[in-house]
Amino acid sequence: MIIQLQQGIPADLKEKILQQVKTVGFKGTEVLTQEGHYIVGIGKKDFDIRTIGQLPGVADIHRVSDEYKLISRKWKVEPTRIDLGEGVVIGEGQFSIMAGPCSIESEKQIELVVEHLKANDVKIMRGGVFKPRSSPYAFRGLGLEGLQMFYRICRENGIKIITEVMQVSQIEDMVDYVDVFQVGARNSQNFNLLDSLGEAQKPVLLKRGISGTLEELLQAAEYIFSNGNEKIMLCERGIRSYEGAYRNVLDLNAVPVLKEKTHLPVIVDPSHGIGLRNYVEQMSLAAVMAGADGVIYETHQKPEEAFSDGQQTVNFQESERLIKRMRKAYELRESF
Amino acid sequence: MIIQLQQGIPADLKEKILQQVKTVGFKGTEVLTQEGHYIVGIGKKDFDIRTIGQLPGVADIHRVSDEYKLISRKWKVEPTRIDLGEGVVIGEGQFSIMAGPCSIESEKQIELVVEHLKANDVKIMRGGVFKPRSSPYAFRGLGLEGLQMFYRICRENGIKIITEVMQVSQIEDMVDYVDVFQVGARNSQNFNLLDSLGEAQKPVLLKRGISGTLEELLQAAEYIFSNGNEKIMLCERGIRSYEGAYRNVLDLNAVPVLKEKTHLPVIVDPSHGIGLRNYVEQMSLAAVMAGADGVIYETHQKPEEAFSDGQQTVNFQESERLIKRMRKAYELRESF
Amino acid sequence: MIIQLQQGIPADLKEKILQQVKTVGFKGTEVLTQEGHYIVGIGKKDFDIRTIGQLPGVADIHRVSDEYKLISRKWKVEPTRIDLGEGVVIGEGQFSIMAGPCSIESEKQIELVVEHLKANDVKIMRGGVFKPRSSPYAFRGLGLEGLQMFYRICRENGIKIITEVMQVSQIEDMVDYVDVFQVGARNSQNFNLLDSLGEAQKPVLLKRGISGTLEELLQAAEYIFSNGNEKIMLCERGIRSYEGAYRNVLDLNAVPVLKEKTHLPVIVDPSHGIGLRNYVEQMSLAAVMAGADGVIYETHQKPEEAFSDGQQTVNFQESERLIKRMRKAYELRESF
Amino acid sequence: MIIQLQQGIPADLKEKILQQVKTVGFKGTEVLTQEGHYIVGIGKKDFDIRTIGQLPGVADIHRVSDEYKLISRKWKVEPTRIDLGEGVVIGEGQFSIMAGPCSIESEKQIELVVEHLKANDVKIMRGGVFKPRSSPYAFRGLGLEGLQMFYRICRENGIKIITEVMQVSQIEDMVDYVDVFQVGARNSQNFNLLDSLGEAQKPVLLKRGISGTLEELLQAAEYIFSNGNEKIMLCERGIRSYEGAYRNVLDLNAVPVLKEKTHLPVIVDPSHGIGLRNYVEQMSLAAVMAGADGVIYETHQKPEEAFSDGQQTVNFQESERLIKRMRKAYELRESF
Repeated sequence: MIIQLQQGIPADLKEKILQQVKTVGFKGTEVLTQEGHYIVGIGKKDFDIRTIGQLPGVADIHRVSDEYKLISRKWKVEPTRIDLGEGVVIGEGQFSIMAGPCSIESEKQIELVVEHLKANDVKIMRGGVFKPRSSPYAFRGLGLEGLQMFYRICRENGIKIITEVMQVSQIEDMVDYVDVFQVGARNSQNFNLLDSLGEAQKPVLLKRGISGTLEELLQAAEYIFSNGNEKIMLCERGIRSYEGAYRNVLDLNAVPVLKEKTHLPVIVDPSHGIGLRNYVEQMSLAAVMAGADGVIYETHQKPEEAFSDGQQTVNFQESERLIKRMRKAYELRESF
Repeated sequence: MIIQLQQGIPADLKEKILQQVKTVGFKGTEVLTQEGHYIVGIGKKDFDIRTIGQLPGVADIHRVSDEYKLISRKWKVEPTRIDLGEGVVIGEGQFSIMAGPCSIESEKQIELVVEHLKANDVKIMRGGVFKPRSSPYAFRGLGLEGLQMFYRICRENGIKIITEVMQVSQIEDMVDYVDVFQVGARNSQNFNLLDSLGEAQKPVLLKRGISGTLEELLQAAEYIFSNGNEKIMLCERGIRSYEGAYRNVLDLNAVPVLKEKTHLPVIVDPSHGIGLRNYVEQMSLAAVMAGADGVIYETHQKPEEAFSDGQQTVNFQESERLIKRMRKAYELRESF
Repeated sequence: MIIQLQQGIPADLKEKILQQVKTVGFKGTEVLTQEGHYIVGIGKKDFDIRTIGQLPGVADIHRVSDEYKLISRKWKVEPTRIDLGEGVVIGEGQFSIMAGPCSIESEKQIELVVEHLKANDVKIMRGGVFKPRSSPYAFRGLGLEGLQMFYRICRENGIKIITEVMQVSQIEDMVDYVDVFQVGARNSQNFNLLDSLGEAQKPVLLKRGISGTLEELLQAAEYIFSNGNEKIMLCERGIRSYEGAYRNVLDLNAVPVLKEKTHLPVIVDPSHGIGLRNYVEQMSLAAVMAGADGVIYETHQKPEEAFSDGQQTVNFQESERLIKRMRKAYELRESF
Repeated sequence: MIIQLQQGIPADLKEKILQQVKTVGFKGTEVLTQEGHYIVGIGKKDFDIRTIGQLPGVADIHRVSDEYKLISRKWKVEPTRIDLGEGVVIGEGQFSIMAGPCSIESEKQIELVVEHLKANDVKIMRGGVFKPRSSPYAFRGLGLEGLQMFYRICRENGIKIITEVMQVSQIEDMVDYVDVFQVGARNSQNFNLLDSLGEAQKPVLLKRGISGTLEELLQAAEYIFSNGNEKIMLCERGIRSYEGAYRNVLDLNAVPVLKEKTHLPVIVDPSHGIGLRNYVEQMSLAAVMAGADGVIYETHQKPEEAFSDGQQTVNFQESERLIKRMRKAYELRESF
């Protein structure tokens, strides 16, 4: 059950509503976000919803039987759009392209990518400064200094930044230098990190786990929302399987299913998804037709020299062709 | 190693070549198909390929390091096109649509589907008469009589037939009434069936196994080819996974990868793939953009009353819209 | 619903029962096996079971809500024991060991294995003469002649034979030379083969599919039973997974779960399960403690020279140690 | 490459060794643990190992080609034993039993479990106070206060504590109240947490990820070791699969394989592994025979009233029987 409260509801009215939620046998959780003020009621009893709906201070009330509540499309039919400022918006009605290297490597590299993005009218650059690596001896990213350099160059060029955050303590350091926090597949059920990103208010791109179910992904998003942050997008990035012919199985089935279950934007990462440079284009175009609100992919001036993930990274020429084709595919989709 | 023999090679020349294959330490298998005459050599030794290449009767010779040989694109770069007659061709340069019910149910049903297909210029109808069912007590199809009825009506209307064959002994009975034999996922490694279909000469659509690897699918196709039948198409139909939100995970990654590995056409089955009627359209359109040479999907005049698979079957209105959109998507793909 | 009929029930009484099954809205299937005579009723309606139970000719009646019926332990609590003759019995109260090479290779090889088995009081020898192979160019077994040789030597030595059957047409040729037909993982849903093995009456060891569910395995067994053959044992042989450290994941969880769901014996194949010779012992001992009624594993006089599967085959010394340890583990289990 | 340094090596000698590591083209990382002082060299060049081995201050040097180094059995053949004090040791030569509820619920509950453990001579109690839950609205544990209560009662009774840590910031608060930190499956690649646990020096039980490979598990352990903590045990807890008959697939194949790859103790969690109370015993006994160094399972005075995981939790009577049988099985294994 989701109870939308009226703006600026007085404390005593709110308490009365919480009291009534308890009376009908539910556990009420208060949620205050950038956009609204809610009480989420969890319980299984059957009761007359009007006993709450008619209370002063209640703007609206909805039953939601899913395990996830606030992110469900059963409650909020209108798709969520996330405004990054300067006209950059993610969500239905747009097709968002986010591109850049796996790892931020140097000032020169950032400049080359930015130039490529600007030439193709792409507004969001990806790039990791904190890298989750299987081996403790591998390159783990340029860290905060790298991020500040990344931020400075992008700001000067009107480009928004998306980059991965790996732990709670990084949020405070990073928050002023990112436009979108990315949560990687390995952290998709790092609940403390999700809680803290709920409080941090900056938009979050949340990746599906290595073998994550859609249900787990949606509940992970509920963590962020219920801690105060509605600006969430979900990302399909490939699931683990027995098939050895590609790195992961990019699961495009997730796209239309997620779009029906939630009002949040759905982004696809074809680079990690299939993990093979030569097929990033086909999978990206397929993602467009499956209904994605955007893609995030890896590009580098010289993929074969990239610090990480070179085998799944396209060069600028391939990237340019991909951008043009995705835009045509999106145009066709919109014409349907 | 693949040795292409000259048309009408005399027996003694062929024997000399086989002898030389043995001499260099390889095991030679002679393959005679509708299209050509080959010797496939299996072995690991290194030798001067010219010792065979220069022999009389050899038209061409190729090294192929894959486990599958004759179906490899490393040897035959030109894509295979399968001509079903009356202008119906499957393979690159076409986008083939095959549609129809899961099970053939009645004369009336066939007529309704045929009418729908004709109205939309679709030339190939699918429909099962021998049904593989998990339970021995479930409906197992109308059998041979159903097939003959199916054949008669389609022939009268210029529609080609694709239907599933489940065992060797059915081939002889069915061969005169089908245009394409379908091998289901559960039979994708039924090697005796594959052998016999190789001898049967009719085109075969071979589905990937329930959890089949691409390598297994390609080797299964090699069974058919090496028994004399080049007219094979591969079909991605979803793989089994932990995800409970859909029946299978339609693995579109397989499409571009198979297209690179083999010269055979690649078809996608979105109905079994995702298993949910509402998302068949998005997955079909995505399949087009991923590079598929065609789709095979389930449609029925009243899906909710279908004998089987109703939950993944679209109605004629949905089917019509899907056909139109797939053709537009294919047109866009061809323009790239 | 399972209706057990009285022995030698007159046709007219049987027809009346079938009629009453229809009257209550169920579909009745008559099943006649070596052991009994049944009507299986499939339907969902609720009705008073006594309307059938009191009919003349009905020995007993049971509701079974599972998809599989005759093999369910809900109906037949007593475990099935399969008597191969000469005191060789498979099922609860015994721990059956079946061992031998992947492929039958030669007379000499059979003799060596037989000698090893006799020295260790093992009564059942495995060995393939028809081999399912991924590649059409690989060794496919010695065929029927190999089987006859295999049979002759084993009969002379009081050893029973288990060997794989791959297609319906082989059954007739093989039936006189086998004690147990093995159905491989790739044929676990080859429903025509299962039907025919139901008619063939010889005991069947049915392997779980490559990624088969327990539900599918149980329904596959129901195919055999409902065609007239109660002598079935199930075999866990490893499932496919993302983990590359072993060939398959031997799923011992299946053992206690199957033992609760069905009255059929459950056998474990550690050789294909983990696929690595060095760990066959630990997995076999674990299988004993998980509750298996037997194991089937690969042994060869010189595993490194075996025609197939050498990497998962133990030598005779390892085999002897394994047999001794399994028997001790079984003894401990029985003492609980 | 692992270079073991002499105890108390002077800084200048160490620098010379690091310099030489660099000279031969490797990247050297210094590791200082409770037990030793190492330099791990990462690189691919071939060189004469004696150029380093002969340097003053080098105690020993080993090539290790695995991605993980310090935890490899190729280097350290002797199994790691972890001493928790008061005679409680985990590792080869012992079979360790850790039991207790999923969640710590109350003082009374702890006392009942402690009493049960003491009566059965079990020395280590598990119990969660910080609970990772899929839904943000579910019970998330009693937190630090619960831990302090848990600690107090266990200390009074000579019982050691293992409990889950979910984030870096909890370590400092928890460290004085735990004997073993547990890292859950969802955090198995939370690299910052692993780094910090490396510094924290307390023993760590590291669970395999939801769909984690053994390689990933081993590299995760390397994170802890390379940050200074050798006291690590690995835990198999079931992997995700397509099979719906149980919660997870407890993968006992992992046990003998891990035991060969690493010198660390290997523990099995049958409760999460199969997720069904009735089969915990069989899977535990199987784990013993597969070679596990211990088990960790869930028990509760009234499983049906447990705050979480009741369906996989055994009661005290079942627990007692399990303990006795595991000890007998271990005794048998040791007799081999």
